[in-house]
Amino acid sequence: MKRLLLIGVGAGDPEQLTIQAVKALNRADVFFLLDKGSSKTKLLDLRREICERYVENRDFRVVEAELPERERGVADYAGSVVDLNAAKQALFEQLIDEHVAEGECGAFLVWGDPALYDSSIRILDAILASGRLSFDYEVIPGITSVQALAARHRIALNHIGGAVQITTGRRLAREGMPAGVQDVVVMLDAQDSYTGLRGQDLEIFWGAYVGTPDELLIAGRLDEVAERIRETRLAAREANGWIMDTYLLRKAED
Amino acid sequence: MKRLLLIGVGAGDPEQLTIQAVKALNRADVFFLLDKGSSKTKLLDLRREICERYVENRDFRVVEAELPERERGVADYAGSVVDLNAAKQALFEQLIDEHVAEGECGAFLVWGDPALYDSSIRILDAILASGRLSFDYEVIPGITSVQALAARHRIALNHIGGAVQITTGRRLAREGMPAGVQDVVVMLDAQDSYTGLRGQDLEIFWGAYVGTPDELLIAGRLDEVAERIRETRLAAREANGWIMDTYLLRKAED
Ligand SMILES: C[S@@+](CC[C@H](N)C(=O)[O-])C[C@H]1O[C@@H](n2cnc3c(N)ncnc32)[C@H](O)[C@@H]1O
Ligand SMILES: C[S@@+](CC[C@H](N)C(=O)[O-])C[C@H]1O[C@@H](n2cnc3c(N)ncnc32)[C@H](O)[C@@H]1O
Repeated sequence: MKRLLLIGVGAGDPEQLTIQAVKALNRADVFFLLDKGSSKTKLLDLRREICERYVENRDFRVVEAELPERERGVADYAGSVVDLNAAKQALFEQLIDEHVAEGECGAFLVWGDPALYDSSIRILDAILASGRLSFDYEVIPGITSVQALAARHRIALNHIGGAVQITTGRRLAREGMPAGVQDVVVMLDAQDSYTGLRGQDLEIFWGAYVGTPDELLIAGRLDEVAERIRETRLAAREANGWIMDTYLLRKAED
Repeated sequence: MKRLLLIGVGAGDPEQLTIQAVKALNRADVFFLLDKGSSKTKLLDLRREICERYVENRDFRVVEAELPERERGVADYAGSVVDLNAAKQALFEQLIDEHVAEGECGAFLVWGDPALYDSSIRILDAILASGRLSFDYEVIPGITSVQALAARHRIALNHIGGAVQITTGRRLAREGMPAGVQDVVVMLDAQDSYTGLRGQDLEIFWGAYVGTPDELLIAGRLDEVAERIRETRLAAREANGWIMDTYLLRKAED
């Protein structure tokens, strides 16, 4: 039987790996380091650093591959993600087939936690469902960018007894603040969607590259800091060629 | 200056501590182990185990204290939590005042992640705002019970591009499935609130004592497994004297 591990490696700080993840790294015969686009080099470097730092007295192979990217600017977002996942599935299938021998263990290093806006679990399940390959797999949780953000701002995500919604920039831009929650975490926002929510008495806790040496943090009343965030974000993206940022929007306490 | 650390220690599996948390444990002169009620002994044991396992070549003191409990059955839930937090604040203040000397470092071991349904951050901020004590503090994120649950069920929390809401059993019972989301994580459910949501074509992924040797997991269509979860939950609570459980409710894909 082939064994696969989806290992959450945290969202930037190599010390935010768990002991469980470190032990899992030390069970792998082969690591798959996948990334895409402009953030590729940096994120691959971080993952390579993780392997080198934590794997002890053990030979391992590293296979790097370029992830297919979603077609931009198409109207059917969900459809484009489905297409993308089909392409990713073909890639995973090929990697597992070619690089993991029977009895071996292959590991995918997943950014943050595999349960949050990541397609690895879905892809492995689809491969198993197709019947084309057979393997066992295990998921190792990792600190998400949301938790890294909250820790750096020293905030709770929820009001007392309140609900928290985790959503995407795309949804926030389309639907505004969701009803019934005072705290909204926004990920995958390529369009500065927070700028459209000024005038609603919101606070924002924003962070980019959280946990890395390039970390940027801004917090305050949205109406007062939105423009500064937008400018900081633009400048950082130009300087680095890519950006990863997350934020919490919070309704002011009544 | 006194230094304090709020260290997220994961939700049951001592291997789900991060390297950062282990390093933080090794900076502490004194550990505050706080718990309450019937789960107290077990959860204190787990925290003591964490200190003994991970602190190396370093003397440390341990201070155990009983957390005040919320008054049950009062109509004003938020009010009762505010009262509770005032009592907790007085306790924290006394502990920090008496047991952390100037220049020393005190650590609170927080279950799961300090950002999720935990009052430690709020309490430290309230003490600082009162001006009665002065200290520096840092938050170390930890794997939440939500992530431990998702990893064990090997599920993503979100549909592709979809939103996820994290809420309480109390809110779910009162408001039903929140509008606009397909995935809802429910915590702090003392009343089997999921049983009231049968007949809505939902799936449930349930787990109790996740990450501990007593772990229980049940998944399936809510209408089919709700009764089994209720019975399992009841029996486990009777056997152990307490229960900690979390679940994801998921709308079936259209
Ligand atoms: C495809 S999702 C993956 C999320 C990841 N699985 C997690 O648990 O954080 C990518 C999004 O995560 C967020 N993100 C990831 N790393 C981040 C970091 N270091 N700082 C801020 N945001 C980050 C950004 O919102 C980014 O658009
Ligand atoms: C006061 S909240 C604290 C949550 C914690 N800060 C976290 O990050 O998971 C307590 C709730 O967390 C959930 N919980 C904590 N530990 C758990 C475990 N090991 N298994 C299942 N649920 C757990 C339950 O829903 C419980 O009612």
